[in-house]
Amino acid sequence: MIPVDIDDIRAAAARMDGHVVKTPMLPSRTLADITGTGELWLKFENRQYTASFKERGALNRLLALSGEERRRGVIAMSAGNHAQGVAFHGSRLGIDTTIVMPEATPFVKVDNTERLGAKVVLFGDTVDDAATHALELATRDGLVFIHPFDDPLIIAGQGTIGLEMLEAAPDLDALVIPIGGGGLVSGIAIAARAIRPETEIVGVEAELYPAMLQTLRGEAVKAGGSTVADGIAVKRPGRLTLSIIRELVDHIQLVNEAAIERAILDLLEIEKTVAEGAGAAGLAALIADPDRFAGKKVGLVISGGNIDSRLMSAVIIRGLVRTARLVRFAIAVPDSPGSLAAIARTIAEARGNVVDVAHHRAFSGHSVREAVVDFTLETRNEAHARAISRHIEQNGFAIVGRKQIDE
Amino acid sequence: MIPVDIDDIRAAAARMDGHVVKTPMLPSRTLADITGTGELWLKFENRQYTASFKERGALNRLLALSGEERRRGVIAMSAGNHAQGVAFHGSRLGIDTTIVMPEATPFVKVDNTERLGAKVVLFGDTVDDAATHALELATRDGLVFIHPFDDPLIIAGQGTIGLEMLEAAPDLDALVIPIGGGGLVSGIAIAARAIRPETEIVGVEAELYPAMLQTLRGEAVKAGGSTVADGIAVKRPGRLTLSIIRELVDHIQLVNEAAIERAILDLLEIEKTVAEGAGAAGLAALIADPDRFAGKKVGLVISGGNIDSRLMSAVIIRGLVRTARLVRFAIAVPDSPGSLAAIARTIAEARGNVVDVAHHRAFSGHSVREAVVDFTLETRNEAHARAISRHIEQNGFAIVGRKQIDE
Repeated sequence: MIPVDIDDIRAAAARMDGHVVKTPMLPSRTLADITGTGELWLKFENRQYTASFKERGALNRLLALSGEERRRGVIAMSAGNHAQGVAFHGSRLGIDTTIVMPEATPFVKVDNTERLGAKVVLFGDTVDDAATHALELATRDGLVFIHPFDDPLIIAGQGTIGLEMLEAAPDLDALVIPIGGGGLVSGIAIAARAIRPETEIVGVEAELYPAMLQTLRGEAVKAGGSTVADGIAVKRPGRLTLSIIRELVDHIQLVNEAAIERAILDLLEIEKTVAEGAGAAGLAALIADPDRFAGKKVGLVISGGNIDSRLMSAVIIRGLVRTARLVRFAIAVPDSPGSLAAIARTIAEARGNVVDVAHHRAFSGHSVREAVVDFTLETRNEAHARAISRHIEQNGFAIVGRKQIDE
Repeated sequence: MIPVDIDDIRAAAARMDGHVVKTPMLPSRTLADITGTGELWLKFENRQYTASFKERGALNRLLALSGEERRRGVIAMSAGNHAQGVAFHGSRLGIDTTIVMPEATPFVKVDNTERLGAKVVLFGDTVDDAATHALELATRDGLVFIHPFDDPLIIAGQGTIGLEMLEAAPDLDALVIPIGGGGLVSGIAIAARAIRPETEIVGVEAELYPAMLQTLRGEAVKAGGSTVADGIAVKRPGRLTLSIIRELVDHIQLVNEAAIERAILDLLEIEKTVAEGAGAAGLAALIADPDRFAGKKVGLVISGGNIDSRLMSAVIIRGLVRTARLVRFAIAVPDSPGSLAAIARTIAEARGNVVDVAHHRAFSGHSVREAVVDFTLETRNEAHARAISRHIEQNGFAIVGRKQIDE
């Protein structure tokens, strides 16, 4: 028996009206072409004030507090979007808000949350330690603990996204939704099953954190490692969300880091929108398994846009390397005047644009009379990169290696 | 006498309905706070199919062709957004479309335009050469030349943006609009003067290309140099647009490269949207002259989102350096085992995150027993960067320099 139904979601929508952004839901013709879907609709939850959907659940939970609970205040554990959602709406409603984060949390996340009006407590090495501490503080200080996903009111709040998506595009064949703890997909699945039961619900997890899928299969959870989709890097699914997902979600798709990075870059280059890794996971699923969605009308949630700018810059550059728009050749260059000029001219003849040159001598292993020089070039695509490398070799230079990203 | 009026713009809107995107117009609370405006509304023209407003004017012009002109085909000169707008709507309408670009145009722009169905002709060293050639081909082959801005139908097409902005936010005090050739600001100014005459119209030019402002002042145009806002790097304003701007635009604000880059980064980090330099120029104007807009309700057009990804990555990194979120210290390190470890530990104590280390020996000018090492660190802000540098010096290491961007 699922403890959230469409009426709870409709009630949440009415309660929150005007206090969260009714985000745009827009079709993308180009991404539909690229992914082979019939229509592709994007729900831009990265346009919420704190740039993620988490505000919805947090606000719905906060609005259900009694007057006495509001006076006591609330506490949550999160270093990410849930922290900002609780902090923003808590302060807005005049509720004292405490957020516990692990000690190693980057400054910028602490800063952002404090700026929204929360008190931040740094505690412990892991999110588990921080969560335990948050529960202790809740008991000690009489604060209401706001769970990030495993709570009927949180799930109903996230479900309002499903209402808005099916209002904008009533005949979607499939909804493809990222899964971390599972609150977002649970809420949307409940809404979709009530409004349009035949809509397929596909959840998406990062390949490194397949906790929900493993738990559904009765396997031990094996999750860990660095992922660009830190927003869905959850090791322990919710109990409530697990039961909802078991009943309502048709399929869980795992996506690897390369697909997530490609999805971030496609959203940036084609849709002109900034998605964090978790927010791009839905598009990554279409890239990972295009056959499942071929010709269908698909809705995705761009669930958040909070990606560190340096990480974004790295994703851009790696994307250029993956698509052969940036290539690095190690070329053996005779150690004599004029040889660098000759090879630079050769590259120019093939219309490669040199953006970086680096010499390596001591470690090159080649003749002491020869230097190995790394040339980083802007190129058009793989065919162009190969044409340049052929032209270099035809002019008598040896390409010692080409740098690729290890996947 | 202005040869475009509000009826022309309303007619354009009716004609184009359903064939260009009625782009979102959304408020930004955070950017309003940062710029000190009372309200700040953004019109997301980067959400057009080819990611710029240029489609509107191009489509309105193409729809006015006679049947015979349609059969002959059209030609335009542009290496940028006008090319894509003409190519996309030309092909969609079954009109043969030729685009002339200078020979040195980057591949990706040629590619994008060809992919939209146009024939691309590369000609000449400059845009002037290419434009002359386009006019010659128009005469020789009987093609209709589609001017990028100096045409009443183009201006009326761009003016539809003004209708939509004032429909979404009817009480704007000011509209801040980028000026290249001047078609966009002309159309919007005509719409705004008719609908809400008291709205202030502010045009924005890149400091390196102040051609419209200089011409209005009767000065010789001095423009040139590399700008991130290549979309408004125009040396010769239109005749028609000049006369409209003289009559209807209240003020022209010049913006320098640093302000434009900062605006691109703010749009990316805060609004989660990708703007090209010209598209960010409006926000740059608010950054450059906040007093003019203090407390006012301001509307900006994010006119385009076509920025090269490598350029975007560079803008991000330079922005982090400008805001002291990325700093590079050159530190003199004794040339002995353990000294690198000692300085790394010192930096860690001050919570700097080392992201790159580079040694320079031969050129350092210091003792042969000492190496100068460049440490690139992630930091919180300027105060944090200074705290780190103090801590390093208190631990007995000499900071030889700090790398800054030359503005």
